[in-house]
Amino acid sequence: MKIDQVLHMNEGMGEASYARNSLLQQKAISIAKPMIEEAITTLYCNTLPRNLAIADLGCSSGPNTFFVVTQIIKFVETLSQQLNRPSPEYQVLLNDLPANDFNSIFKSIPTFKHELYNEIQANKIGPCFISGVPGSFYGRLFPTRSLHFVHSSYSLHWLSQVPEGIEKSNKGNIYITRTSPKKVLKAYYEQFERDISWFLRSRAEELVEGGCMILTILGRRSEDPSSKESAVHIYEVFANALNHLVFKGLLQADQLHSFNIPNYIPSSSELKLQILKQGSFKINRTEVSSVHWTHCGTDNQHKSGAYNVAKCMRAVLEPLVLQHFGEAIIDEAFRVFQELLADTMSKEKTEFFNITLYLTKQSPSCVCFN
Amino acid sequence: MKIDQVLHMNEGMGEASYARNSLLQQKAISIAKPMIEEAITTLYCNTLPRNLAIADLGCSSGPNTFFVVTQIIKFVETLSQQLNRPSPEYQVLLNDLPANDFNSIFKSIPTFKHELYNEIQANKIGPCFISGVPGSFYGRLFPTRSLHFVHSSYSLHWLSQVPEGIEKSNKGNIYITRTSPKKVLKAYYEQFERDISWFLRSRAEELVEGGCMILTILGRRSEDPSSKESAVHIYEVFANALNHLVFKGLLQADQLHSFNIPNYIPSSSELKLQILKQGSFKINRTEVSSVHWTHCGTDNQHKSGAYNVAKCMRAVLEPLVLQHFGEAIIDEAFRVFQELLADTMSKEKTEFFNITLYLTKQSPSCVCFN
Repeated sequence: MKIDQVLHMNEGMGEASYARNSLLQQKAISIAKPMIEEAITTLYCNTLPRNLAIADLGCSSGPNTFFVVTQIIKFVETLSQQLNRPSPEYQVLLNDLPANDFNSIFKSIPTFKHELYNEIQANKIGPCFISGVPGSFYGRLFPTRSLHFVHSSYSLHWLSQVPEGIEKSNKGNIYITRTSPKKVLKAYYEQFERDISWFLRSRAEELVEGGCMILTILGRRSEDPSSKESAVHIYEVFANALNHLVFKGLLQADQLHSFNIPNYIPSSSELKLQILKQGSFKINRTEVSSVHWTHCGTDNQHKSGAYNVAKCMRAVLEPLVLQHFGEAIIDEAFRVFQELLADTMSKEKTEFFNITLYLTKQSPSCVCFN
Repeated sequence: MKIDQVLHMNEGMGEASYARNSLLQQKAISIAKPMIEEAITTLYCNTLPRNLAIADLGCSSGPNTFFVVTQIIKFVETLSQQLNRPSPEYQVLLNDLPANDFNSIFKSIPTFKHELYNEIQANKIGPCFISGVPGSFYGRLFPTRSLHFVHSSYSLHWLSQVPEGIEKSNKGNIYITRTSPKKVLKAYYEQFERDISWFLRSRAEELVEGGCMILTILGRRSEDPSSKESAVHIYEVFANALNHLVFKGLLQADQLHSFNIPNYIPSSSELKLQILKQGSFKINRTEVSSVHWTHCGTDNQHKSGAYNVAKCMRAVLEPLVLQHFGEAIIDEAFRVFQELLADTMSKEKTEFFNITLYLTKQSPSCVCFN
């Protein structure tokens, strides 16, 4: 499966769209807000830029797309007023894979600008140039030394591909679990290592000296990659739903065996190790936060919250599931998933863990690690 | 009508799509090829750039989108090999209005890159960063002094809006004709003046010193704006088709009276005058070329060529016509249009005129005019 061409959040504005089921991701951005403010303040005060190029990697489409950009611009406007400096020119570079719904983002630009100019005194704010940059962030996307600030939230746990050679080894599972053979763990970890290294190397080339990144990644607390927590746990529940379909004869077992989620849910120390190994970035700060699964939605009619969680996961996973299993089983798969989620959520502590990193590009000679 | 939000070429890849009905526009790009080569050669040899930012304004979607970009990159690669210089980093900025089908462009990037790397020795070419920049080119789109080369073909005859105050004055017409009152001519010309001045001012701010533009505009030979030639003529035929629908009771006369095409089809001297007045650009060269209406298509089953011309015009005009008149009359309008085109093309010389300009940004103190 070519992830680059298949992976995207559910498009449009319908009931099952990502745009209407992305509260969890918005929560993650809100949690990172103080760190974004710290990073922007340091960047602005150190460089007093006339042009500020901000890239959002894995921007998706929907209300979250402009949520973080609005925050950043508001921080900069406050700073430039405090320091009595002219507002810079903003260059907003929105990246996602080519299958993302960029048309929908572009049509919402007038609304974004209208709201932004309403919140800030419109006569003072510098021009804001917005562009869409399609492509995988596991490679170069922007010219050399052209970016000042990179933001990415809930995107870097997506691998560039399903690790090779695990198709027949991870039977009945769709991600790493306690029953996965060591070979599967190794393949997932090595894919994560390769991908994160490409990501860091590419951004190091694209950022100006002193440029910085705020990365929020769906992670885990435990050092054990099969620990039943965060997204590892939710994928186990989804695997159970698919196994249930196999049991009912709606799905071939072989089809399930060959389906593996192209994610790696890292621990904080795994991430830090990769950043240290790559060597281009100083880690200024790391924070781990948790969000309860029920933050996926606000629909209180469904008190267990499982309805919202299933919808949220469907908005994210549907294109992958559709591509692999076909349309016939989609509704049933997510119906059973919701049932199992309701059961799980009534019995266990169900939280996602976010790891937020604040990194600054450093010169090659200086390697720092906090 | 908000042109910014309505105007786009017919999307997708279907029978009526712009992608499948844009041979005329491709022909215009081919005609401009020697001038593009001259401009790129001068630019490259004068600046030996490590990064080359190329903007295509009004890029639309379909085969033409990457047609000119491929040409430009091939010219640069030849030059860099001849001069034994490393290939630069390419930044390709594709602009059109937000309603344009950017999703379709982005999905075709892998094919474009594959073909490009096949034509050029892939191991030598610098990276090529592609982005979509939605917005009206009658205003700023890019950061200050960030562009090296601007290309625009068959786009600048589109005005930013229908000139104000002509709604009830241009009865039975949809563009300037011999029966249009002077007020209508004046309103169209003044809108053209305002728009082109904004265009030039914006590009002057965005281009680096020595940066250049190749602009191909659908124009006319005569100094009389109502002269029955080029696109002025074809709009007259389309107005006749709409009048026929009024006659048959399929359309209200009022609906037709309030429909005016947001185009201005300028003469070469009108364009030059505006460039001189604005003052930021040196005119290196101007060329006027003609393309027969039959170049709209290659479907030889329809020998009159009217079938292809009607399809080509439909791919361009349908969203505007649909927005103003509704869906019910679309098929009939273009059917009658085709009939009238067949008649016109059998009796008269039917050509479009293209004006191609090669401009270089000059310092404010030096105003040249060839």
